Amino acid sequence: MTRARKSVVRRKAICAYDGSRFNGWQSQINAIGVQDAIEAALEAVLGVKIRIHGSGRTDTGVHALAQVFHFDAVWPHTAAQLLAALSTRLPHGVQIKSLQCVKGDFHARFSATAKRYHYRLFLGRADPFEEAYCWSISRPLNLHAMRQTAALLEGRHDFAAFSALNGDEKETTVRHLRRLELKVRGRRLRVVLEAEGFLYKMARRLVGALVVAGLGKMTPTEVAALLESKDRPAVLETAPAQGLFLERVFYR
Amino acid sequence: MTRARKSVVRRKAICAYDGSRFNGWQSQINAIGVQDAIEAALEAVLGVKIRIHGSGRTDTGVHALAQVFHFDAVWPHTAAQLLAALSTRLPHGVQIKSLQCVKGDFHARFSATAKRYHYRLFLGRADPFEEAYCWSISRPLNLHAMRQTAALLEGRHDFAAFSALNGDEKETTVRHLRRLELKVRGRRLRVVLEAEGFLYKMARRLVGALVVAGLGKMTPTEVAALLESKDRPAVLETAPAQGLFLERVFYR
Repeated sequence: MTRARKSVVRRKAICAYDGSRFNGWQSQINAIGVQDAIEAALEAVLGVKIRIHGSGRTDTGVHALAQVFHFDAVWPHTAAQLLAALSTRLPHGVQIKSLQCVKGDFHARFSATAKRYHYRLFLGRADPFEEAYCWSISRPLNLHAMRQTAALLEGRHDFAAFSALNGDEKETTVRHLRRLELKVRGRRLRVVLEAEGFLYKMARRLVGALVVAGLGKMTPTEVAALLESKDRPAVLETAPAQGLFLERVFYR
Repeated sequence: MTRARKSVVRRKAICAYDGSRFNGWQSQINAIGVQDAIEAALEAVLGVKIRIHGSGRTDTGVHALAQVFHFDAVWPHTAAQLLAALSTRLPHGVQIKSLQCVKGDFHARFSATAKRYHYRLFLGRADPFEEAYCWSISRPLNLHAMRQTAALLEGRHDFAAFSALNGDEKETTVRHLRRLELKVRGRRLRVVLEAEGFLYKMARRLVGALVVAGLGKMTPTEVAALLESKDRPAVLETAPAQGLFLERVFYR
């Protein structure tokens, strides 16, 4: 592509990362974020500082199978060659899966139409190789109650009670949770969550709510009634970060 | 058991650990070894400093599914209670799988009669969640040549060329490699290595030798002929630590 040779072109990238090996997406004082690792690789390849823009942040410990980001850069060779050059410079635990040129109005965050996460639960104690990638629950879980709760929470609701927002937020807390599903394979449970947008910590608090119902601490109806409470009920545990995986970001 | 109540009893423990989250088995300056983590948990539970003795060290990055260690301690309750108390105090990435009282002459290292390791290879590029647990090889491997090489190296030989010893070692470098096997499942290869004893870095250099044959850099016969060379041939790569798992320590 001629246009890629000398001018600045916007590029969309999909990356995967092991959240246990970084301190979240965004850089923090004295700790390396995934974003820093990718920006350092870009600087090494392109010779200039490049700022990347993710579809959203992920908290420390949260993983991504397909996080999306964009950046603007001049690169005189093919996208495949840029991908290969970056790959050799990225540390263990983060990989760029694909890289493509996009129109200049594409924005990883603002163009996104929905996101899908999944959360991994392990019934019993996960081995040391798996424990950074799931939430181990040793007490028995009532899967039927969890499924009932999921069905009640699915749909368009005000999820204020299921987020961890500051009190002064002015924006709407209504979200359309179009999918909240429980998949079971042996001792491994997976909660699939899909919405046009998630409030801060909403995915992990929804999983916490399903577990509260699974443990029999509240009935499915009681959990769903928390939607009405509008503040943050103490009974709702926030599921630990290490079980959460950003699975897919949707675009038009 | 009355004898366990007030007197010192020797205990044998089996533990698993993710080598990517520690700096080897033994403590190092400014870096935490698996041994430190376990000794810290023991001190927290027992109130005194306890020294543990492993079946052997593992290098930084090497994992264990069943490393064995022993220690002497007074504990007035059951072994199961000690195990439970320790479990809550161990960091992520290390777990004690079993704990039992043994005779006072048991020694994790000197009583061991053999060890089994396995090494994980990935054909292509492992994803970011797997790359700390295997060696990714992007060039094609000739599995037939690797199997032929394994067959030639199996048995009792002087493995000096397949170790990384200092020149001044006086002890014999003859070892009985009773099993060197290649298992294939899709893009995942597993090399099983079993011997009464391994020389320093022998397991990783044997895997390196199989890969040299797999890549066609040397024929199986040429690799096997290195057994005669007695020094360290530069052609033999040492397979990276992260693919190696201590699978089992055998005792009489």
